[in-house]
Amino acid sequence: MTYCLGLLLKDGLVMIADTRTNAGVDNVSTFKKLHLHETPGERVMAIASAGNLSVTQTMLAILGEGMTNPDTGEVETLAHTPTMFRSAQLIARALKKAYDDLSPGLFKAMVPAGVTLLFGGQIRGGAMSLYQIYEAGNFIECGPDAPFLQVGETKYGKPILDWAMRYDVDLMEALKIGLVSMESTMRSNLAVGMPLDLIVARRQGLKFELNHRIEPDDAYFRELSDTWTASMNAAHQAIRTPPYGNAAPGA
Amino acid sequence: MTYCLGLLLKDGLVMIADTRTNAGVDNVSTFKKLHLHETPGERVMAIASAGNLSVTQTMLAILGEGMTNPDTGEVETLAHTPTMFRSAQLIARALKKAYDDLSPGLFKAMVPAGVTLLFGGQIRGGAMSLYQIYEAGNFIECGPDAPFLQVGETKYGKPILDWAMRYDVDLMEALKIGLVSMESTMRSNLAVGMPLDLIVARRQGLKFELNHRIEPDDAYFRELSDTWTASMNAAHQAIRTPPYGNAAPGA
Repeated sequence: MTYCLGLLLKDGLVMIADTRTNAGVDNVSTFKKLHLHETPGERVMAIASAGNLSVTQTMLAILGEGMTNPDTGEVETLAHTPTMFRSAQLIARALKKAYDDLSPGLFKAMVPAGVTLLFGGQIRGGAMSLYQIYEAGNFIECGPDAPFLQVGETKYGKPILDWAMRYDVDLMEALKIGLVSMESTMRSNLAVGMPLDLIVARRQGLKFELNHRIEPDDAYFRELSDTWTASMNAAHQAIRTPPYGNAAPGA
Repeated sequence: MTYCLGLLLKDGLVMIADTRTNAGVDNVSTFKKLHLHETPGERVMAIASAGNLSVTQTMLAILGEGMTNPDTGEVETLAHTPTMFRSAQLIARALKKAYDDLSPGLFKAMVPAGVTLLFGGQIRGGAMSLYQIYEAGNFIECGPDAPFLQVGETKYGKPILDWAMRYDVDLMEALKIGLVSMESTMRSNLAVGMPLDLIVARRQGLKFELNHRIEPDDAYFRELSDTWTASMNAAHQAIRTPPYGNAAPGA
């Protein structure tokens, strides 16, 4: 399992991914799931992946070698795509090719072959974008009404996003909310685990303002978890006692 | 889908269940999923159900008619079981019988047949207990380390329980936390919906201190949701800005 989160906000982009890979609880390892491409001042891109690791790595290798665009006949890589939309199309083609090549063998072995990606970034002259890309080669784009996309183990970390994530939240506040979303997921699913990789990119910045790995013993992350838990206990006490039936003496 | 929650705390028992039943998004209805049995001063019991509605209703009918105990030859009903453990055994036998009778036909029709129950309560002279009962006829018992059990759509509502639910939380605080857990689930899964049924029973009270249905237009529930959302926004602002990389100017 995996949990990756992408936030596309008024001020920019936040992406966070865990690093745990497992084939059964007795075969656990750490693999980077947040893959970056940056040409400062020109383009900044991040791909986060959830799903079969071999399909993901094959897709990344295909992307690295470049793919021939069936319309133009040219070999395309993420270093030269003209727009984020064309970049998403390229990644989707690479993912579909890796999936189509490998999934028949994986199905025979009863191994899940699916991969879902988050792809965010900006190219000079274009808008900042965030996409969710599926192994069928299709994708959807994040919009301001629900300014986040999730892949992998998405449910545990969603309520905090529903409660607190809005398009106009400050980038550093959004990062904190995103880390709480990761924390609540790691508590409940052992297949999502530290270290965490994260990036922050401001609109028009065309570089990673922040590119960081949070290690398992990180003091700030523990502080964030403790502060949050204390706030949760204050939060339910701030709610009035239910006025139902004979439940609330004096209410 | 369904979401039912049981809390077994130092002071007593809280159980909450939604009422939405659906066979596809175009076939939605309301059915009570929290079934009560009360003889004030003698016994207080509640069963919450998640899963196939026909299997659940058949199980309830079998329970109502009574089942012959294979060891004693006597017909048992929940009105006369001597202990909560024996009551859980009776319910488990009734559920297994309903499942065994109906599941072959349901499997042929490709309809999920599974049912999981929460069963909580107290019989005079015995301890208050909360069980999770499976259609295989087995069950587990709730303990103070993790003082809650969930059935149905469990993931969205679990983080708030992890953060705030402890064995020594006051019963009315626990009810508030439980309602927030329901609220976060209903936001994300349309197959979990209002009205909500809830009960509260204090240890040794041997009656329902509270037995209430929250209707869709309930003013208090909206107030609880609004107060909680406001607290969530204060909660992330109370966390220090991440000190990572060059992310926090001045930090």
